[in-house]
Formats: sequence, structure tokens, C-alpha cells
Amino acid sequence: MSTRAGIVVTGTEVLTGRVADRNGPWLADQLRVLGVDVSHVVVVGDRPADLHAALTFLAATDASLVITSGGLGPTADDLTADVVGEFQGRASAVDPALEARIAVIVDDLVARRGWRTDTAATAAGVAKQARVPHGATVLEPVGTAPGLVVPPGEGRSGPTILVLPGPPPELQGMWPAAVAADAVQRALAGRSELRQETIRLWGTLEAQLAVTLREHERELADLEITTCLRDGELEIVTRFAPAAQPAYDRLGDLISEHYADTLFSTGPTLDELVAIAFADRGLTVATAESCTGGLLAARLTAWPGSSAWVLGGVTAYANSAKEQLLDVPGTMLAEHGAVSAEVAAALADGARVRLGADVGVGITGIAGPGGGTPEKPVGTVHLCVSGPEGQEARSLVLPGSRTAVRERSVTRAMHLLRHLLAGGPPA
Amino acid sequence: MSTRAGIVVTGTEVLTGRVADRNGPWLADQLRVLGVDVSHVVVVGDRPADLHAALTFLAATDASLVITSGGLGPTADDLTADVVGEFQGRASAVDPALEARIAVIVDDLVARRGWRTDTAATAAGVAKQARVPHGATVLEPVGTAPGLVVPPGEGRSGPTILVLPGPPPELQGMWPAAVAADAVQRALAGRSELRQETIRLWGTLEAQLAVTLREHERELADLEITTCLRDGELEIVTRFAPAAQPAYDRLGDLISEHYADTLFSTGPTLDELVAIAFADRGLTVATAESCTGGLLAARLTAWPGSSAWVLGGVTAYANSAKEQLLDVPGTMLAEHGAVSAEVAAALADGARVRLGADVGVGITGIAGPGGGTPEKPVGTVHLCVSGPEGQEARSLVLPGSRTAVRERSVTRAMHLLRHLLAGGPPA
Repeated sequence: MSTRAGIVVTGTEVLTGRVADRNGPWLADQLRVLGVDVSHVVVVGDRPADLHAALTFLAATDASLVITSGGLGPTADDLTADVVGEFQGRASAVDPALEARIAVIVDDLVARRGWRTDTAATAAGVAKQARVPHGATVLEPVGTAPGLVVPPGEGRSGPTILVLPGPPPELQGMWPAAVAADAVQRALAGRSELRQETIRLWGTLEAQLAVTLREHERELADLEITTCLRDGELEIVTRFAPAAQPAYDRLGDLISEHYADTLFSTGPTLDELVAIAFADRGLTVATAESCTGGLLAARLTAWPGSSAWVLGGVTAYANSAKEQLLDVPGTMLAEHGAVSAEVAAALADGARVRLGADVGVGITGIAGPGGGTPEKPVGTVHLCVSGPEGQEARSLVLPGSRTAVRERSVTRAMHLLRHLLAGGPPA
Repeated sequence: MSTRAGIVVTGTEVLTGRVADRNGPWLADQLRVLGVDVSHVVVVGDRPADLHAALTFLAATDASLVITSGGLGPTADDLTADVVGEFQGRASAVDPALEARIAVIVDDLVARRGWRTDTAATAAGVAKQARVPHGATVLEPVGTAPGLVVPPGEGRSGPTILVLPGPPPELQGMWPAAVAADAVQRALAGRSELRQETIRLWGTLEAQLAVTLREHERELADLEITTCLRDGELEIVTRFAPAAQPAYDRLGDLISEHYADTLFSTGPTLDELVAIAFADRGLTVATAESCTGGLLAARLTAWPGSSAWVLGGVTAYANSAKEQLLDVPGTMLAEHGAVSAEVAAALADGARVRLGADVGVGITGIAGPGGGTPEKPVGTVHLCVSGPEGQEARSLVLPGSRTAVRERSVTRAMHLLRHLLAGGPPA
């Protein structure tokens, strides 16, 4: 890898976690595809000195490009363009032509949304957004803020700084123009392809895999292998130069050989596998969820085109909903309780029958923090997937918070669907 | 603010976006409550040199405490403890007593999960996790990895480094012990209370607010105000020392005075307001979702205790589900199409009636990327909330990706609920 980059994500709202950063990871992935390796993502609040310190840090690494996101809005806490200009030794001034173009965009936006505004406020905001460091390249706004490519000022060395807006749709929309800019191309000269491949195991420990990797350390020396265990899925991500493809093929063979019983994917995510399996087999699905409250349906329908195979589902929080919409017998609820294997199976069957689907999924459990008992503690979850070739069920006690219990239940249901439809390791 | 801290989040899976970082924001918020200000969150991959560079950077700021998360697992890419020990000038060695305690935890975990493992692999992983820099304080494992408090080595200066595990439940579980550790208390000496308050407006532009803030710049000088516009909500977060409380009260008055028509909260989030309104008024709700596929139900039920007021919902993706589970007339679907204001109202009523709820919500739309037509482009969404005191409906064309259209539709539905139940600015 001859070319590296650093990323600065600005915004006190990101630093303090009120907004999750989506730009750092997205930029890192785009750069990887271009053959550029990212060393650090630095999140910094809306304070000029802290932003300056982050730029100083990244300029001192071997990065030839630094990308900033955010801080290009119309208000006083949006200070990225000025700080970057100063850092590169380039004074900023309002670009009148750019100012006029932004004014048109803002007027149109205000008119469309019917927002209340006043002329002076709008004009001040527009002028602020039209400030450009001398010699910088302007990237046309996707929202209201322009991007900037700011090379080091005359007689200076260091990375070129690419300044992008914070809202992810704006940043992503501006990316093609940013990459095409001459100054960015110059900063990225010398980059080389880096491949990335992913292998997924279900139910193998990191420590176990580590033995295999250690045993074959020399054969795999040219691979950068990272492993991550999440909700029972061991994700093995490998990055390598094209010349190391044989070493990667060897890794694939080793894993097929040693972990055939847990290997469920050499690429696609769990969600992709489930979507592909439904589409390929021409089957439909319906859900019946209690504790997960619609999360499984939301996850299945997140997939574009899922309307071809998701018929729908029922969130049956109240017992009355389980009875009336999914035909769970009141006697069963009384005898076994709403959180039981029996009710999970009845939910799955109810969803199948009521929605006329090939496959039904039932989930019932206690997500907490309240509602647990000694017999049925918080985290107790019963799952059932019922299809044309039979059914599979699991009864679990999952650890963690309300959110964790809900998410893990949904992941487990996805594995049940994956196994029922496409085989592979049991869920 | 006399005490500042820096945070390092390690892990190539975080740097490349495969896993979203939840630790940086969580730690920043915990530190804020303690009166410690965070300057930077640095995300770094599993490479010793890059981690070392991040520590060097943060040590050169005015941070008296640096917190790392992640890189404490049993595999070769987990290198935080050794790198931190070396950075602080403290050699690491296996702590035999700690090794024995971790071995018990791991054996228990493997037995409970029924994972396949082998003795040598497990022992090597345990020994790796039991390596402690000389003179460091061990924080007992919550999962399998211990935490560490590593002050600068003898004769050195710089921040104390608090080393925490990566999985959020482990990091959060270890936090009380970490804060109580003497070396951490010493590093945080001199901290002072910092208050944080939030005001939320619905439908005011940042540039408009900026005018008000500029006009009263001097009265508000002791406040650190940051604004963030997201899906139509302008969030105004203010941090200030206790002595600046009168200035904050003045800000509150100014906003009440100038933005009464868009001010919907002086604290609680939209989701809290909706949950509180349902609980206070003793009303129940049921949802009927097409394009949002269960996301609204999932968002409502994310709230602990929501089972008291959420009866359930139907994800009606297929028209047959709309007809059979929610009584949307087939003639209406044929005449107006599934994506229409008429069907949104029928969905809301169907959910109310079928689930016996006080309030019903109907959402139908085209989330994309496919399915749009010139008359009904991608992003077309019809919403209806129907309650005992009448109904409110909105027809919108929302911008953005499939994910954005779905999320924005749900947020708009939450505002409709908020307005119907609790008043405030219209949704």
C-alpha cells in the first residue's frame, strides 16, 4: 500500500453521540475500493483548536489526502472551511459567483418547504457558505454547501485536504466529483488495488480460529486478517494485494476444511443470503412478532425488492392481537403463557395461514428490563420458523439490554430462515 | 473546563464501517456527566503503529486521561494492552492469578454455548488476555477480557490510559469499577460540573436561529451552543458551567419568544414525548404499515414498558394483507392504488378497529429504489393518524434512499402522534 488517507469527522453532535457517524465508515470503504488505505478516523467537536489539532495529527502521518466531513453549514459553529484554509496557509474570501448559485438553491429550498425565514438571515448564511480558501477547487453543492479541495499553500508540503459536507446524502452525492478533481487525483497518485473478502462462521470461537491461523502463519503472511465476533457470527475479513490472491485462496481452503460445520458464507451477509434464498426458491414469508415488535419485518423489508417475497406480518404485543389476528388459542395462552415454545409455534403458523405465506416466523419473549420471573427471566425468547418442509424452533435465554435481546432474537430468526431455506450450519 | 480526555476506538471492523462504533459516544457522554470534556475520538485499525500514533497525538493534547476501547480479545490482531504498556514504558507479562480467573470464565462460556474448542487454543487465548503491563491496575473481566488502568511509567509524564474491552455491554459493565480506580480518580482531579440541555424545534432553519443567536451574542457568550438539523428537527444542544445557568435561562426565554410556533421540546426526545403522552393519557395505539415494513412498530416498542400502550400492528406489504388483516376495501385499492391518501386512512382505521386501539396509524408509500412512476415517484408517502378526537393526515414526497424514505416516514408519523396527543407545532 503506497497511498494512505486520514478522515476527520466534525461536529459536537457526532462527538457526543447524539448523531451516529456514517461518513467515516462510508469514506473508508470508498477509499479502499480506490486502493487507498485509511489510517485513522478522528471525530472532533465544533471547536477550531481541536479541529486544527486533528489536522496537524493527520498531516504528520503518511497520509497524502485528508478528508473532512461536516462543519459547512450556515451557522457560527460551522467552521471547517476557514480552519482548513488557515491550516493550509490559504486566506478565505467570499466567492461572489458561488454565493449567487447557493442563494438560488436556498431560496428554492425555503419556498418548497414553506419554512419561515428572513432575508438578512438567509443572506448571511449564504455568504458564509460561499467562503473559499484562495486557490481551492470548489465542488458544486449537492445540498446547500459546496465542497472544497484545498492543497497545501505555496511553499508548503503536506496532504491535500478534501472538505465535504456532513449530511451523508450530500457527501455521497459529491463524492464522484471530488474523486475526479485534479488535486485529489494528484494526491492519490501511486495507489494500488487492495482486495477485501469476507468469510462468515456461525458458532466458532475467535480463539479456535486463531490456532488455525497460527499453524499456517507463513502461508498466510501476505494477508491482513481481522476477525470480529458479533452475536455468534465470526466475521473474518481479509485485505490483500492482488499478488496475494493464492494465499487468500489457501485461507479459504483451510477454513472450508476445518470449519465446514460452521461456515455459512464466503461473501454475502446473512440478510443477503436470506433474500437470495427467498427470491431463488420463489417462496413467500410472513412474520408474527411479540417482543421484537416489528424489527424482523423491518429487517426483511429493508431489502430492496423484498415486496416480491415478504407478504407482511403482525406485531402482536397484546394477547388480544395474538388471538384475533393470528388465531393463537386463548387456552394455550392461559396454559403456557404468551412467552412459550407453544405460542411461538402458533404465531408462526398463524402468520403463515392468515397471510397465505409459504413460510411463517413466530417470536415471543421477554425483552426487559421489566417482566421477568424466576421461571422466565428477562432474555427468555422462543422462536419458530414454519415452512413447507417442516419447522425449526429454538428456545433461548439471551443476555443483554432490551435492545440487545430484541436484536439478537431477530438475528437468530434470520439464521433459522437461512438454515431452513438454504441449509448450512444449524441456527 | 479544567479536565479533558481523549478516546481511542480500536478495530479494523470499526474503522472500515463493518461495525458501528457505540463506545466513543457512550464514553463521551459518561465523561460529560463526570465534568470531563472530550476533545477527540480517534478510530484506528488493528495495527500497532497506527494505535501508537493515536496515543501520541492524544498525549500531546491537554488530555489527562486517554481511554481505549477494543483490542483485548484472544487473537493476534488484539494488541491494545501490549501497545499501551509499551507506550507508557511498562513491560507486560502474564499475571498467573488473572490467567486462572479468565480460564474459569472461558471454560464456563464454552460449556454453556456448546462451542467446539481445543485446550491448547483456549489456553493460548487466555494467557494472551492475562498479560498486564507492570504497575497497571487490573479491572476484573465482565466478559472474558480484563480492563487496565496504565499510568505513565516511572519518570514519565502524560495522561493515564484506561484500557477497556470493545463489546459495549462489557465496556459499560466495567465503567463503574474503572471510574472508581484510584489512578483514574487522580487523572480526573480538578474536573468541574458541565451542564447540557437540549431544545428541539420542528421546522425552523439553522440560518434563522443563527440570527437570533447573533443578535444576543453577548448575553449568551458563556454558552457553548451547537445546532444540528436532522429530518426537519433542529436540535439545539447547549453546554455550560453552572455559573452560566442565567445565560441558559435567557436562551430558553429567547427561543420561547421567537420560535413558539416550532418549539416542541425543552428536553425529551420525540420518542419520549410520544411515550409519555400515551402513558399519561391512558390511550393505546396500533399501527398499519406498508412501505415502512414494521419500523414504526419497532420504534414504538423500543421503549421499555411500551407494552402498556402498544397493542400491536400489521405490516401489510401485500395488498392481500391490507384487505384480509386490515379491511382495506379491494375496490379502494383498485381505484386509488395502494399508495394513496385513501388507503393510508383505511389502514389507520383498520389498525384501530382490528386491534381495538384508541389510536391507529397508517403508512403507505414507495420507498424505492424501484416502483416509482411519474404520478407517484419514489418517496411518495401517505400518512394518517386516527384517534378519538379526529384524524390527521399528510401526503409527502420524501427525498433520499430507501432507508432514508423509510426512516423519515416513521419520524413524520411520530410527529403526527405527538401533535395529536400532546399538541405543540403541527407535524
